[in-house]
Amino acid sequence: MSKKEITAAANDGVMPKATVGRLSLYLRQLEALLRAGRDTVSSNELGQSLEITDAQVRKDLTYFGQFGYPGIGYRVVELREALRGVLGTNRTWSVALVGVGNLGRALLGYRGFRDRGFDIAAVFDRSPALVGQQIGGLTVHDVGDLPEVARRLNLELAVLAVPAEAAVEAAEAVRQAGIVGILNFAPVPLKVPEVVSVVSVDLGLQLEQLAYQVTQRSAPGCNGKGV
Amino acid sequence: MSKKEITAAANDGVMPKATVGRLSLYLRQLEALLRAGRDTVSSNELGQSLEITDAQVRKDLTYFGQFGYPGIGYRVVELREALRGVLGTNRTWSVALVGVGNLGRALLGYRGFRDRGFDIAAVFDRSPALVGQQIGGLTVHDVGDLPEVARRLNLELAVLAVPAEAAVEAAEAVRQAGIVGILNFAPVPLKVPEVVSVVSVDLGLQLEQLAYQVTQRSAPGCNGKGV
Repeated sequence: MSKKEITAAANDGVMPKATVGRLSLYLRQLEALLRAGRDTVSSNELGQSLEITDAQVRKDLTYFGQFGYPGIGYRVVELREALRGVLGTNRTWSVALVGVGNLGRALLGYRGFRDRGFDIAAVFDRSPALVGQQIGGLTVHDVGDLPEVARRLNLELAVLAVPAEAAVEAAEAVRQAGIVGILNFAPVPLKVPEVVSVVSVDLGLQLEQLAYQVTQRSAPGCNGKGV
Repeated sequence: MSKKEITAAANDGVMPKATVGRLSLYLRQLEALLRAGRDTVSSNELGQSLEITDAQVRKDLTYFGQFGYPGIGYRVVELREALRGVLGTNRTWSVALVGVGNLGRALLGYRGFRDRGFDIAAVFDRSPALVGQQIGGLTVHDVGDLPEVARRLNLELAVLAVPAEAAVEAAEAVRQAGIVGILNFAPVPLKVPEVVSVVSVDLGLQLEQLAYQVTQRSAPGCNGKGV
């Protein structure tokens, strides 16, 4: 731990959504730098690969404290720990996976969840053919048992990997279980009470962004600068 | 078509990455408004659900032309068509899916791709047990046949749904096939030539954003404004 005081001030100010999104990207970069054996990094370098200015990087990071050292930059380990603290990934989260079709099974094996402290501790489905089966080392529970299992295992977040038509029922079961965070893969907007946070994953949107990049590169009169 | 000239000027200026990301979100909203039978929308309303200012909305939309009508706002159909034109989704894209494990099969059935003009026209895998099989109405080809199949079917984009250790080989096959856009689900950074665009999907990052929201809501001293 450095002598310099870290003041995690995130709760005192409102951080714009875009800034929170960038915190995750800074964290990915810091992890890559650590793997490469780096001790320090400048705001300029942090900004470069995200195509943002060093001024923006410094502004983002001052939302939750003063981390830069004049003439040195940021200490990689210190900044990583601070970002993990702000994002809430400096601990393990118990996660419910609802829906064990192809997508659910893919997510169950997704290394990127566990690596960041997200532990899928229980899986649920509404199909009688699946309930009671073992998938990925876990017994599939009926969605109706969510409240009971959630209390017993202290489940905190839910990943919804169900078809659109099952999403409303699944979200309601999650809410009744007292779970206040949903990562939603179902291609429908979820109506949930204010107290529940929802992050929706729209895979079509990502493909659209790719189409834009490819279109710009191949467009006649393209200035080649791209995005 | 309105009498007002639409000047798609995207190629003349460099649009910041964040703006391009928001174009997709505007498009989602316009589609929802159309389903609700709406003809026009204000920049204020477009901005509200994305938590950005009306000034930012207007700035984003002027990157590729003048669309606002004083006292009316934006015409929903006109703006939707313009955004689709800029993003490149006013046409059908032929897409190669590489990897037909759980994730690949889930993506093959993902309605959000076809709805936006992304047509998975061929599937590939390196497993001899899968090559030649029928999955989702398509015959699984060997990854090594990508160049030949891509030329024959005019494949333009590739979705990589392979494990980390297979990603390099898959990306190389895609590049050799002359495909210049990759949507990468493999949890590794891809090294590709400049001419290939890559958009990487990091599902762990989305869960991290959810953890942040839940942490902020439950933090002692939280001001309740959240993000």
